[in-house]
Amino acid sequence: MKPPEPGADAHLLEHFVSSQTLLQGGYLTVKRDTVRLPDGHTATRDYIPHDGAVAVIPMLDDGRLVLVRQHRYVVGRVLLEWPAGKLDAGEDRLVCAQRELAEETGYRAREWAYAGELHNAAAYSSERLFLYFARGLQPGTARPDAGEFVETVLMTQPELEALDAAGSLTDVKTLIGLHWLQQLQAGRRAVSWDKAPPDKDDAASV
Amino acid sequence: MKPPEPGADAHLLEHFVSSQTLLQGGYLTVKRDTVRLPDGHTATRDYIPHDGAVAVIPMLDDGRLVLVRQHRYVVGRVLLEWPAGKLDAGEDRLVCAQRELAEETGYRAREWAYAGELHNAAAYSSERLFLYFARGLQPGTARPDAGEFVETVLMTQPELEALDAAGSLTDVKTLIGLHWLQQLQAGRRAVSWDKAPPDKDDAASV
Repeated sequence: MKPPEPGADAHLLEHFVSSQTLLQGGYLTVKRDTVRLPDGHTATRDYIPHDGAVAVIPMLDDGRLVLVRQHRYVVGRVLLEWPAGKLDAGEDRLVCAQRELAEETGYRAREWAYAGELHNAAAYSSERLFLYFARGLQPGTARPDAGEFVETVLMTQPELEALDAAGSLTDVKTLIGLHWLQQLQAGRRAVSWDKAPPDKDDAASV
Repeated sequence: MKPPEPGADAHLLEHFVSSQTLLQGGYLTVKRDTVRLPDGHTATRDYIPHDGAVAVIPMLDDGRLVLVRQHRYVVGRVLLEWPAGKLDAGEDRLVCAQRELAEETGYRAREWAYAGELHNAAAYSSERLFLYFARGLQPGTARPDAGEFVETVLMTQPELEALDAAGSLTDVKTLIGLHWLQQLQAGRRAVSWDKAPPDKDDAASV
């Protein structure tokens, strides 16, 4: 959509009135904002403030893709996903993408392209997901965080597309990354490939 | 993916130990489960228990698609989305899809096809989203819930695809619904069209 004209969405917009914190101190914070509705009434919106996350679509020179399998306890399934991770507050998104790719899979990429932005749970989480394409991949040693158990999977694009066709691919960032990869290949999505900034850990890494 | 062999994912699986409730009584509940990790250590997983949601990809006979624009206060944007809504605990998914389509847009559909399932925030919410295609649409009067302000938008598929290409489409269910619609048209996604069950409100509706 075009950016809305000033005032054009007045019939839709909810305006901040006040905020309180319902839960904090753990992994999830919950806030409750009071808002003024378009009709002048007030309502409350409960949500999780989230610093965002990144995901990487890593493309090997031989055409295979790099994914991870991970038990997502909260949904009770092992999901096939692009390598991904949470942003720390204020963290550079590309730096985070490079770190997560290296930590989860060991791969480092020479070239990166920003793919796009997602809202994955706009009703109750402020999370935004930023997707990147990565190519010019070199293998290395994965260094998952303590308590993180992930398995790297190399897969051709037709294999991934077959899982999609069968309804076996259910993770939203993974489906959309595959979609955007197809659009990129069809010339229907423009991206800009940039060299990765030098990796500060290069001197110490194998 | 093929269903895992019994024990095949033992190196990934986290097992329930105990659960406590950190927040409840409002719109969001937060639970903290203690889990046993594959290496025998324990960890906690904080998450939102969610009964799931449905979204509808409504296809008019003239080829246009029915979407809604809604201010998503939590992410601070007006988003373009498929009509959608939360499931009540135990509610039939198709009944919910039909209700949400009618409430948000006024449209009722003669034929429905299940499109697929999504995990949109598997790290911290048990939400699953179930998508349906709907065709044979008849217009009617929208009846949004109190405090819900949504605007119906009719759009051709090329118009929606142009928004995707420009990076202006960011809602995950909407992007994936468009992707699956394209796959359906290309013969790469099979669905089964069923007549909608009779609407109990038909006698009273205009």
